[in-house]
Amino acid sequence: MPTSNNNPAPPAHMSPDDFRRHGHAVIDYLADYMQRVEQLPVLSRAQPGDIRAALPPHPPTTGEPFEQIFADIDTLIMPGITHWQSPNFFGFFPANSSGPAILGDLLSTGFGIQGMLWATSPACTELETHVLDWLADMLALPQQFKSTSTGGGVIQDTASSSALCALLAARERATGLTSNDTGIDGTFTCYTSNQAHSSIEKAVAIAGIGRNNLRLIETDTSFAMNSEALHRAVEDDIAAGHTPCFVSATLGTTSSAGIDPLHAIGDICKAHNIWLHVDAAMFGTAALCPEFRAMHDGLEFADSYCFNPHKWMLTNFDCDCFYVADRAALIRTLSVLPEYLRNAATESGAVFDYRDWHIPLGRRFRALKLWFVIRHYGITGLQQHVRYHVALAQQFSQWVRDHDDFELLVDPLFTLVCFRHKAGDTFNEQLLHALNATGKLYLTHTKLRDQYTLRMSIGATHTKLRHVQAAWKLICDTADATA
Amino acid sequence: MPTSNNNPAPPAHMSPDDFRRHGHAVIDYLADYMQRVEQLPVLSRAQPGDIRAALPPHPPTTGEPFEQIFADIDTLIMPGITHWQSPNFFGFFPANSSGPAILGDLLSTGFGIQGMLWATSPACTELETHVLDWLADMLALPQQFKSTSTGGGVIQDTASSSALCALLAARERATGLTSNDTGIDGTFTCYTSNQAHSSIEKAVAIAGIGRNNLRLIETDTSFAMNSEALHRAVEDDIAAGHTPCFVSATLGTTSSAGIDPLHAIGDICKAHNIWLHVDAAMFGTAALCPEFRAMHDGLEFADSYCFNPHKWMLTNFDCDCFYVADRAALIRTLSVLPEYLRNAATESGAVFDYRDWHIPLGRRFRALKLWFVIRHYGITGLQQHVRYHVALAQQFSQWVRDHDDFELLVDPLFTLVCFRHKAGDTFNEQLLHALNATGKLYLTHTKLRDQYTLRMSIGATHTKLRHVQAAWKLICDTADATA
Repeated sequence: MPTSNNNPAPPAHMSPDDFRRHGHAVIDYLADYMQRVEQLPVLSRAQPGDIRAALPPHPPTTGEPFEQIFADIDTLIMPGITHWQSPNFFGFFPANSSGPAILGDLLSTGFGIQGMLWATSPACTELETHVLDWLADMLALPQQFKSTSTGGGVIQDTASSSALCALLAARERATGLTSNDTGIDGTFTCYTSNQAHSSIEKAVAIAGIGRNNLRLIETDTSFAMNSEALHRAVEDDIAAGHTPCFVSATLGTTSSAGIDPLHAIGDICKAHNIWLHVDAAMFGTAALCPEFRAMHDGLEFADSYCFNPHKWMLTNFDCDCFYVADRAALIRTLSVLPEYLRNAATESGAVFDYRDWHIPLGRRFRALKLWFVIRHYGITGLQQHVRYHVALAQQFSQWVRDHDDFELLVDPLFTLVCFRHKAGDTFNEQLLHALNATGKLYLTHTKLRDQYTLRMSIGATHTKLRHVQAAWKLICDTADATA
Repeated sequence: MPTSNNNPAPPAHMSPDDFRRHGHAVIDYLADYMQRVEQLPVLSRAQPGDIRAALPPHPPTTGEPFEQIFADIDTLIMPGITHWQSPNFFGFFPANSSGPAILGDLLSTGFGIQGMLWATSPACTELETHVLDWLADMLALPQQFKSTSTGGGVIQDTASSSALCALLAARERATGLTSNDTGIDGTFTCYTSNQAHSSIEKAVAIAGIGRNNLRLIETDTSFAMNSEALHRAVEDDIAAGHTPCFVSATLGTTSSAGIDPLHAIGDICKAHNIWLHVDAAMFGTAALCPEFRAMHDGLEFADSYCFNPHKWMLTNFDCDCFYVADRAALIRTLSVLPEYLRNAATESGAVFDYRDWHIPLGRRFRALKLWFVIRHYGITGLQQHVRYHVALAQQFSQWVRDHDDFELLVDPLFTLVCFRHKAGDTFNEQLLHALNATGKLYLTHTKLRDQYTLRMSIGATHTKLRHVQAAWKLICDTADATA
């Protein structure tokens, strides 16, 4: 093919000096945003199509000045933002951000490296391995999850991807290392509680095992998996000719923060050689504090574990830490080595190539932000963060208990308070919409015991006592006005 | 569980003023990095374990000053960086960065929003849909890939994930929408060329189809898939009782930039109702220029298409644009809707919830960086970028042709030049190691026709004629010294 230009020249890139100038402006904008986010309506008021309708139908033919592009953030984008970093954000689970995380991530973006292989930037791989070993100790995880033992950790985008990778390794082990080559024949069964995250169902579908072969095990009154019911389901499946291959236990379910009993589940998995994955996406962070580690009792039985610093450990999305006890099993499952990726370091066997630990090939240098966060706060600072939010949730729960019109659905262990007004489902749904329409806070809901339930999820980086106090007052006042 | 602290208080967060100060310092550091990266050794000289050995064995108990953390970037991290943004980086494929992309991504990081649902930040979804429609027009993709028709685009992390999502939708369609529920039974077959990316093999394994059911179709002298051979393989599989379900065609293979003949392949897929995925990860960007769009002839037969602005379109990793012609098929495959994600906008059907378009649930606001890039450069600026690098590669190829000791393995269409010294495999391998050891450039290799081949991959953002000239001189001088 011909080139159409006889005197080609590069386009007008942003010069380092212009980058410096515009970069300072963006930093200033974000510093201001941190200060004013508390005053903004938490939930975006945009209606479907509003944001798009304000955008030009065609891309510009020639480049535009940065000032003009940047100015459109306020006019075109800001109206469509739901402010996850508002201290009044109590929806879903938090997506923590912090100054050190933002700046660590900025360095990663600026370096623009791609860490698919050890050789494509050794620091990207080795810092990640090292910091994940630090974190294993900080959470008091069993030694087998450390890279200095038989396992190791890797940063994934989300707990959904970690669950999928764990399931694939489980499938490969259960099929005697044949599923990757010959596919599977539908006789495998998987288990998780009926409160577990939807990502488990998604993973079972993706892996070709089929959602019909996922058993949703019943839970007890605190929404924890009933291990007796798990035991019966496994035995029934074996009797029916199935091969149980994967159990996902949850430490902190999305709906209600249920904590599955790892020790009892682990006994069953060990007896039947079933891969045990532990999804501690939200509440793994609590294990930074020794007084909250009881949930890890039995973790020595687990084959894999994940938790998300991007939820409640002050590290910007995306940052899910995924650990395996037997890294060889994971690598064997996900490794493909074409000629164009061969290199001396890989052949030596002395390095990790993290592309073999997850689905994508390319990868960002995500360990930088995590390293910055751990060093900025230190172990005690992170513990203080956890304890403060747990104390706020305990305080909120007590207010609910003490109020005649409201009730708790379950006693909260950590920072998720599931509660409802006693006036019934319709009232609670109206209450939620009325609250969110004020813009002063954002709550989401779930159903527990078939009842519409409000979720007060405390955990945004800058949520303090006064925000929780104001939220409770608004909830009570709005309920009174709605009644 | 009790809280262990009777007077809890939040930890010491970085204040907005400190963020402003440290943020300016990081921006300045990156502006300086842009200027000095050209002088740094391209390939990191770290040996396995070097970086880790310099890190403290334990995380800090208390927080450290930001200045101290930041200073360690130079001492501990920089020695382990391979400089993908050096204009002397000619390895693998490029991972383009640019000022507007870095600043757009910084805003995304600073906002800290999570775009899993339309409702969790409408701008995150609507800007992405809109910009991907812009790009569809900029590449002159068939109309069915636009959101205003039956399809639409979504940003994925990598082409590996896009291929997996395409395969899953293909599998679900081919099984009459049963594979998600009941799993699969091993009778499905998939096809790609023997030059295709390893991610296709990985996807086929993940999806439970089995690598033995992936047919690697032979290629012609320009390393393009032989469509006759594809036709025979499909017919043979049907005769043997298999169900062909997925073909992945490549526009720009990793080893040699081979361009598969879409029209001939599309005819076969259409005749047999096989999902056609087109992986244009590297060279889709070339279609910004009308004179390079011949490779898209036949794209109207495709069910899905992806290309990576994070390779050669000046948008920082990660940014893979994935398009489907029938979005309902993709959403049906990947959607799971638990109660805690239900919301009015989703129920209305008037919005996209991008969590149903990929594997993870959570997602960053990646459209911002892409929007900034398109607006900063404009269509003509991006075209200029493409034409300039193609011209550099044509120039380099001519030097190879004109040299008695070197030969081209294939005439390059775009920016990847596959060449070798005529002195044989061992000589070329030694030459490559000698070149990379200089630190003055970084090249990688592949094997073509069983011959050790050097890959000169031009495309780093700031690569100019003088860098390519210097590279060629160094290659010739080093070859002379090695001989």
